[in-house]
Amino acid sequence: MDKPMFLKNSWYVAAFDTEIGHEPLARTLLNEPVVLFRTEDGTPVALEDRCCHRALPLSMGKVIGNDIQCGYHGLEFDAAGDCVKIPGQNAVPPGATIDSYPVVERWGWVWIWMGDPAKADENQIPDYFWLDSPDWATIEDYFHVKCHYQAYIDIQLDQTHSPYVHPDTLGNAAKLRVKPNVTREERALKCERLMPNDEPPPLWAKAAKIEGKGDSWNRWVYNPPGTIMFDVGAAQAGTGAFEGDRSHGVTVHNTHAITPETGTTTHHFWTSARSFAQEDAAMTEQLKVIRKVFLEDVDMVEAQARTIAAFPDAPTIDVAMDHPTIQARNLLSRLIDEERQSSAA
Amino acid sequence: MDKPMFLKNSWYVAAFDTEIGHEPLARTLLNEPVVLFRTEDGTPVALEDRCCHRALPLSMGKVIGNDIQCGYHGLEFDAAGDCVKIPGQNAVPPGATIDSYPVVERWGWVWIWMGDPAKADENQIPDYFWLDSPDWATIEDYFHVKCHYQAYIDIQLDQTHSPYVHPDTLGNAAKLRVKPNVTREERALKCERLMPNDEPPPLWAKAAKIEGKGDSWNRWVYNPPGTIMFDVGAAQAGTGAFEGDRSHGVTVHNTHAITPETGTTTHHFWTSARSFAQEDAAMTEQLKVIRKVFLEDVDMVEAQARTIAAFPDAPTIDVAMDHPTIQARNLLSRLIDEERQSSAA
Amino acid sequence: MDKPMFLKNSWYVAAFDTEIGHEPLARTLLNEPVVLFRTEDGTPVALEDRCCHRALPLSMGKVIGNDIQCGYHGLEFDAAGDCVKIPGQNAVPPGATIDSYPVVERWGWVWIWMGDPAKADENQIPDYFWLDSPDWATIEDYFHVKCHYQAYIDIQLDQTHSPYVHPDTLGNAAKLRVKPNVTREERALKCERLMPNDEPPPLWAKAAKIEGKGDSWNRWVYNPPGTIMFDVGAAQAGTGAFEGDRSHGVTVHNTHAITPETGTTTHHFWTSARSFAQEDAAMTEQLKVIRKVFLEDVDMVEAQARTIAAFPDAPTIDVAMDHPTIQARNLLSRLIDEERQSSAA
Repeated sequence: MDKPMFLKNSWYVAAFDTEIGHEPLARTLLNEPVVLFRTEDGTPVALEDRCCHRALPLSMGKVIGNDIQCGYHGLEFDAAGDCVKIPGQNAVPPGATIDSYPVVERWGWVWIWMGDPAKADENQIPDYFWLDSPDWATIEDYFHVKCHYQAYIDIQLDQTHSPYVHPDTLGNAAKLRVKPNVTREERALKCERLMPNDEPPPLWAKAAKIEGKGDSWNRWVYNPPGTIMFDVGAAQAGTGAFEGDRSHGVTVHNTHAITPETGTTTHHFWTSARSFAQEDAAMTEQLKVIRKVFLEDVDMVEAQARTIAAFPDAPTIDVAMDHPTIQARNLLSRLIDEERQSSAA
Repeated sequence: MDKPMFLKNSWYVAAFDTEIGHEPLARTLLNEPVVLFRTEDGTPVALEDRCCHRALPLSMGKVIGNDIQCGYHGLEFDAAGDCVKIPGQNAVPPGATIDSYPVVERWGWVWIWMGDPAKADENQIPDYFWLDSPDWATIEDYFHVKCHYQAYIDIQLDQTHSPYVHPDTLGNAAKLRVKPNVTREERALKCERLMPNDEPPPLWAKAAKIEGKGDSWNRWVYNPPGTIMFDVGAAQAGTGAFEGDRSHGVTVHNTHAITPETGTTTHHFWTSARSFAQEDAAMTEQLKVIRKVFLEDVDMVEAQARTIAAFPDAPTIDVAMDHPTIQARNLLSRLIDEERQSSAA
Repeated sequence: MDKPMFLKNSWYVAAFDTEIGHEPLARTLLNEPVVLFRTEDGTPVALEDRCCHRALPLSMGKVIGNDIQCGYHGLEFDAAGDCVKIPGQNAVPPGATIDSYPVVERWGWVWIWMGDPAKADENQIPDYFWLDSPDWATIEDYFHVKCHYQAYIDIQLDQTHSPYVHPDTLGNAAKLRVKPNVTREERALKCERLMPNDEPPPLWAKAAKIEGKGDSWNRWVYNPPGTIMFDVGAAQAGTGAFEGDRSHGVTVHNTHAITPETGTTTHHFWTSARSFAQEDAAMTEQLKVIRKVFLEDVDMVEAQARTIAAFPDAPTIDVAMDHPTIQARNLLSRLIDEERQSSAA
């Protein structure tokens, strides 16, 4: 049996909360068609986007009260996925049902659980409080990326590409000189790079008005399968940033939700949050370059994906700087193995 | 052995008669490439659109007299598909031949027989006299539809979708309340819905200037594999339309020729004919909304086809209102089975 | 085992020399991704266009001195394909290498050898001296053609299509009347058609200002797998062109390099060279119609390829005029067979 491609018993980000309303939203997630909408009281609902009668996407229909009506023959389904009305007949037959998925709205994102609903535990959603805190100003966007989700997680967790892919913004050679400190947990991987008294990344140096050397940091927490938070920034060298005083620098939290669409395409929801100059529109403009930086990553992984698709059997090697991303791959692989063994038992 | 996808010994509409002239017309029908043209006396000809020499489509060549000349090396084929000239040599070798198909021009359409030519019987072409009668005014068009032809026949024969897909034109709730009367024949299926003293379909109510309730009707005759005629309309309620006096209403005959292009794409030739206000250009304009209505069907079946292609094994259920379309599917399926058994014998 | 699609131990044209510089050029050749660039002294280099680390196309990186640097993580490769630098570590592991291909720059073209490098012999490159001689004026271009390379070689070696595909330029009925004289060599096929005192091809008749009848010639030399030179032209009839005096006519050498990109797409590099009116810009303009003529061939082979892809099992016949192209196919087929037997031994 082929190894499953996705971890099922886990939360994935399905949408920004602002994307979902009383108009149905169609989105493919983990190779399954999903329709998202809100009931009358605003509760988000996620159902299989396929009528059990003639396979029409329910997202082509309309929300009526708390139910969704198929646009072809008018069958209606409630939030549990049960058909509650079939025009032209009184009884609803037993098989008239579609999949329903647990959803939770948190931190401005709508999270979906595509595995066993009985195992859905809201406590597994990471604490990303800065995403909807008034103390943080945010820039956010969505990318549709043409690669396998694992390759996209790789590039996020790998800072050694920055000097080559983002030389004018996030890149600094210190990322290559300073070895990362990686910590494994049961369902998380943490990584820290502290780069004291060195050239700071150009983007943070400019935002923090650093003159000469800086103390810069890059810390991330990966929660498999697909969410990553970055605590990044820089301060004037020797002003105590690594000891807790970041007031002479800038702190940014970049948060990435990477959700497989199919085996070859990926949703990327991201938010860049800052805890300084929150009201400063000029600073917001200045930091919008982060979108361009993230798109440089997209160029890389899409080109990589095209080559791998054309030459799937070509051998590759690993190098020393890969060890954080390899640990992340191993963690996710272990969780998928455990889930397979658990469902086989 | 997989069941054949198409009924071969049957007439299909290949083109409107106005599409075919002395310039070759290329069209794929039942997964076969066909070139259509007229000989000097105007007789339509259908040949395999592939030179037996180097596989060039003959439709890229030109008609010379009663023959067609390949545009690559000048081989010429007559209306029977026999090669009659090969430049550079005197004799034509025995295998130099391509398929030729019986064609008949009738009712403004050119019909083709893709099966055993010996069985081609013109009497099997339905009587659609209104298509070229001066007593009827017509609107017509062609759609290229990205779905399996059976799904497209389904939506034509199914009126229960009208209240959901065409609410402002053909839809009326009576179509759901009134059960259809279905009659089976050897090679036809007939269906009738009479909806007395009820809300008439908006499109006919407007054309007939009905005030309040109407008597409306929807009758169709399906001739498998792919032609359907509709006798539809409405009259002021209680004026005798069901007893034979339609003078207080309007009658429209919609005629559909649904011809498979491939297993996933379909040709749709259609004509909407009316027996009232034939010279009234404003009425013609008013009724052109029928094109938009038919395109609403195309949206449905193409979305359905995309879902089925993505999830071919997803289960579906049938409901009560499906019974006319299921009978039509069964009729065509039986004819395909009979044809297979007959050719195996 | 399926027969290999390509002759490997042979020179193919990879690019015009002007296409290659210090910016990397990506090109797929014989189903393999290749990156082309020049070292500091201008020597052309061809490497596998795929980093051995994370499969990124090296063509997205940059040339640094004599090496190419991957745009993702900065690995550097020399002209032999050996990795010479991996950021973040001192040693380069043994498998860190990519394919390198022999290349030779000659006649304005860059030739590549995709087979066993030990067998690469520059003497096998044909003598196309007119391509960079000051005595010849040239027009050149590149086409990307959507067909199998063999079908494209066929149409070049076949003049019997000219009266049908190029009736106003290269076509003349004499090409059908005069049988070609074909000569076989170990690794070449030669063909000559001399058409005395006949209607000359319109394009040469106009260039040579021939009045009435002409003596025209069409000679070609095919060097498998993919290069062909044509010596074509016409002179006023009876002025001794066939005896060696072409001063009363015009001589053109068309040279074609046909290199497989994949099994279904082909690179076509071509040059049309003339030994008359070299400085005459009006004549250059007049002869640019040759580009349109060559594109008429592209139309043919691409239509043929679409038909063959749709109906791969449809039978075809050969005709008398095919014998030069069939001999060319047989020659290439024999060389591929020999190469397979040689590598199996």
